[in-house]
Amino acid sequence: MTRRINPRTSSEQVSDLTAGRLSVYLRCLNSLDVAGVKAISSKALAERFHLNAAQIRKDLACFGDFGVRGVGYQVQELKRHLRMILGLDRTVRVAILGAGNLGLALADYPGFRQEGFSIIGLFDADPTKVDRRSRGGVQIFDIGEFRKQVRRHAIDIAVIAVPADAAQSVVDTAVEAGIRAILNFSPGTLKVPAEVKLKNVDLTVSMESLSFFLARADSDAKSA
Amino acid sequence: MTRRINPRTSSEQVSDLTAGRLSVYLRCLNSLDVAGVKAISSKALAERFHLNAAQIRKDLACFGDFGVRGVGYQVQELKRHLRMILGLDRTVRVAILGAGNLGLALADYPGFRQEGFSIIGLFDADPTKVDRRSRGGVQIFDIGEFRKQVRRHAIDIAVIAVPADAAQSVVDTAVEAGIRAILNFSPGTLKVPAEVKLKNVDLTVSMESLSFFLARADSDAKSA
Repeated sequence: MTRRINPRTSSEQVSDLTAGRLSVYLRCLNSLDVAGVKAISSKALAERFHLNAAQIRKDLACFGDFGVRGVGYQVQELKRHLRMILGLDRTVRVAILGAGNLGLALADYPGFRQEGFSIIGLFDADPTKVDRRSRGGVQIFDIGEFRKQVRRHAIDIAVIAVPADAAQSVVDTAVEAGIRAILNFSPGTLKVPAEVKLKNVDLTVSMESLSFFLARADSDAKSA
Repeated sequence: MTRRINPRTSSEQVSDLTAGRLSVYLRCLNSLDVAGVKAISSKALAERFHLNAAQIRKDLACFGDFGVRGVGYQVQELKRHLRMILGLDRTVRVAILGAGNLGLALADYPGFRQEGFSIIGLFDADPTKVDRRSRGGVQIFDIGEFRKQVRRHAIDIAVIAVPADAAQSVVDTAVEAGIRAILNFSPGTLKVPAEVKLKNVDLTVSMESLSFFLARADSDAKSA
């Protein structure tokens, strides 16, 4: 049985938020698959993982006709389709720019390997780091070799893990080398051309939502 | 001029998403303040940082009567209020559990310090790591001392940066020590009591949204 991705849905129409949710659904299906679950309804999926059943149906309907009335979704089949929609049916090749603690941690992050991302290498300007390896065995290259390695290994995604003051120049290096997708961990705003997708991960935002929770809990406790 | 946080808005009503957006607004205001901007309208704020003007007005209206018609928001005043709403008007004390690459990277992450988070210490079970320090000078304690240190330093937030197979037992340790807010970087699902706030940061989700973008761009290019 083959189902095509709905061709009317263009990149613009499907938001980052949808992509994020599809990624969460894939994570849930992985865990159901490990637990031996064969099929699940949108309602049961929503209840089990604290999601929204209507949103699940809406998100998946954008991409084809999954799910059988009364039975639900076939776990393995839906997993395969989600991986295809997310572009994970081929190996996605990743370079990490910056071989400090964060870069080294990301190079060995187990989640990336599980989902078929291949970490091609770390890149750094510090000559004392070049030619060494992360604990997991990822090699550190000279940043001056980045363009060459991008071509050699057909690198898809550059991860920016350098200090804030070096970030824009490293991003420029990545864009000049032909990279079209960048995941940035440096604080601050970076500029990229319109055709390049830049995703910023700001760890402070997550920490602040906890601080917000604690502040509200305190103020609720005082007013109670 | 003092403005109170609207007492009708309880923790339940204000979602994590709102907290995330407030945190983003604060980040934008910080950058405007550095650039010497004194006042800005919601429209200009939205245009400058690719946000939604109506959403900004709606989010801020939950917490009080900010902004002056025709003038906009006073940057420094709104910053101060956002910091108060987010619980950043006092020092938020953070412990990091796990002194591997990720834990060490988080301990020295500059964004945390800028926003008033204080990293009290790293905690690890590995005796060869205990009593050493991160590059930035954060001390590594024995995880067996966690409970004592939580009391001594009134630690608010625990960050989980241990391998997946150790995560639940480390979270249990944190909860038993009285921690009410946890930021988890380990893959997989963790259980906490209802009164504890757990926030999961899954780095794979960000990476997959880039993979999704690349897959869509390829398929659009082929169909064009």
